[in-house]
Amino acid sequence: MKEIIECIPNVSEGRRSDVINEIVQNLQKTGVKVLDYSSDPDHNRSVITFVGDKETVKKGALQVAKDAVRLIDLTKHHGTHPRMGAVDVIPFVPIKGVTMKDCVEISKEVGKEIAEELNVPVYLYAESATTPQRVKLPNIREGEFEGFFEKIKKPEWKPDFGKPEVHPTAGVVAVGAREFLIAYNINLNTTDLKIAKKIARSIRESSGGLRYIQAKGMELKDKGCVQVSMNILNYKKAPLYRVFEIVKMEAERYGVNVLESELIGLMPMDAALKSLAFYMQFPKLTSDRIVESKIYE
Amino acid sequence: MKEIIECIPNVSEGRRSDVINEIVQNLQKTGVKVLDYSSDPDHNRSVITFVGDKETVKKGALQVAKDAVRLIDLTKHHGTHPRMGAVDVIPFVPIKGVTMKDCVEISKEVGKEIAEELNVPVYLYAESATTPQRVKLPNIREGEFEGFFEKIKKPEWKPDFGKPEVHPTAGVVAVGAREFLIAYNINLNTTDLKIAKKIARSIRESSGGLRYIQAKGMELKDKGCVQVSMNILNYKKAPLYRVFEIVKMEAERYGVNVLESELIGLMPMDAALKSLAFYMQFPKLTSDRIVESKIYE
Repeated sequence: MKEIIECIPNVSEGRRSDVINEIVQNLQKTGVKVLDYSSDPDHNRSVITFVGDKETVKKGALQVAKDAVRLIDLTKHHGTHPRMGAVDVIPFVPIKGVTMKDCVEISKEVGKEIAEELNVPVYLYAESATTPQRVKLPNIREGEFEGFFEKIKKPEWKPDFGKPEVHPTAGVVAVGAREFLIAYNINLNTTDLKIAKKIARSIRESSGGLRYIQAKGMELKDKGCVQVSMNILNYKKAPLYRVFEIVKMEAERYGVNVLESELIGLMPMDAALKSLAFYMQFPKLTSDRIVESKIYE
Repeated sequence: MKEIIECIPNVSEGRRSDVINEIVQNLQKTGVKVLDYSSDPDHNRSVITFVGDKETVKKGALQVAKDAVRLIDLTKHHGTHPRMGAVDVIPFVPIKGVTMKDCVEISKEVGKEIAEELNVPVYLYAESATTPQRVKLPNIREGEFEGFFEKIKKPEWKPDFGKPEVHPTAGVVAVGAREFLIAYNINLNTTDLKIAKKIARSIRESSGGLRYIQAKGMELKDKGCVQVSMNILNYKKAPLYRVFEIVKMEAERYGVNVLESELIGLMPMDAALKSLAFYMQFPKLTSDRIVESKIYE
C-alpha cells in the first residue's frame, strides 16, 4: 500500500458477539485490513481498528456505520462508557503517504454519506471540527444519546451534515481526522504515589504542561513502583523523547529515577524515528531509510 | 512477506549495461523483489540488492549465478576492484522472521547447487565459514581469479563445494550469511582531520576499539568539517547508540562536539528500535510494536 489511513470506529455494542462478528465480517469484505477489534462488556462498546487506502477506508467506515445503525438500538443500550450513537465516533488517522488534510477530506465525505444514506446527523470533530466547541469529543458527546433530542435543537449544535433530527435508534455520530494516539507510560523507582501525581501534573496539558499530553499518576502494586501513565494525542507536536526527558528531569528533583518506558499498543514508525533522530543527532530520519519500508513501498 | 532475507550478489560486470539488464530482468522473474542495483565502470562490478522469502531468495541467487557464469568471461575482465568470480560473492542477510542459522543453511544449499549445476567451486564465508581463514572475504579472494588456478590446489584452499578446479571463465565464488552492514558517519564541528583520525582509531576494531566497526577519519571540504566514516558490520553486537556515544565521548576530550549523524543507504527497523530502546529505557522494543509492521505482517 502506497497510502495508509487508519480508521478506528467505536460502536455501542460490547456484549452481543454475533453483532460484533457481523460488523467485522462485513467490514473485511470491503477490502480493508482489520488490525484489531476488542469489546468491553462493562463499557458495552467495541473498538475496531482497520487500515486501507483512501478509497477502501471510506468504504470500510461507511460499511461499519451501516451495520451499526441496522443492528444496534440505543434505546435499549446500557453501559458505563458515554455514547451518543450506534456508531459513536469514527476517527481517521494518517499513517503513510497521506496528509492530515487528506484525512479531513475523507472524514467530510464519509460524514456526508452517513447523513444522506443513513439519516444519522454527523458532527465533524478533532482536526475536522468546524467550530472550536466541536474539537474535543467529550464536548460533543455531553448529554449523550438521551440528551441529544433537546441538544440538537440548539443553533450551536446544528449538525455539520444532516437535519437536526436525532436518529430514533442510532442517535448521532462524530466523524473526524486526528493524529495517532500513543499510550505511553513511565515507571519510576519509588512507591510514593504523590511523586507520580506531581510529575503527571507537571507534564499534562490540563495542568499547564505540554500540549497534547494527558497524564495521571498510578500505583503499580505488583511491580512495587509508581507510574506516570500518559496519552500522547499528537506525537508529531509532542514527540516521545520530549515527554520522556521531561518526566525524567522532574523525577530527578525528588531523587527518583526512571525504571522503564512502556508502550501500550502500537506506535507509528515515524514516532520512533523522530525520537531516535533527536538522540543520535540525525538531521532527519524517515521511514524511507528503513529496509522494511523499502521492501513494502 | 512473513520472512524476509536480503541477498546482495556482486557480479564482475560494471560496463556492459545489456549484460546487467539481462541479469536483473531474469532475477525479477524468479519472484524476488529487487530493491536496488548499481554498477561501477571503474570497478567493473555491479551490486544487486534483492529480497525474498527462503525459497524465492534461493531461486533468485541461483539465477544470478547462472546468468553471470553464462555472460561474463573473467579472462577478459579488467577493473580496479579485486575479484575471483563472474559472480564474486553472494551474501544472505536475515531481515525479518528468519535467523542467522536459516541464512547459513540457505547459503549452503545455494553453494551446493552452484558447484553441482555450474561447475564453479564454492567457498563458504562469514557466518557460514568452515574454517577461521575463510571468515573474511579478502582472505579468500587473495590472489584473485588469475591466482586461484594455483591457490585452489593447496589443501587449505580446497573448496567447500565442488572439485578443486577453477571454472575456466567464471572462476570461483564466495557464498555466506552475514549481518546487515550499516554505513554510518558522524560529522564533527572541527576542521582538524587529526582529531577525526584519532577518534576513528579509538572506535575501530583493527586498532583495538569496538568489534565489528571499521572506521576512518575524513575531511569534508564542502561542509568545512571532518567526519568519522564507519561501517558497522554487525549492528546487533555493535549497536548504533554505542558507536554514537563513544565517538561523542572521545570527541569531547578535544573540546569537539558532534554536528550530526549520517546514514548512507538503509538500516533495518530493528537497528533503529534497538537504539531508541536504549535512550528511552524500553526493556524491549521490536518491530511488532510498530503500526506499519502490523499492517504488512
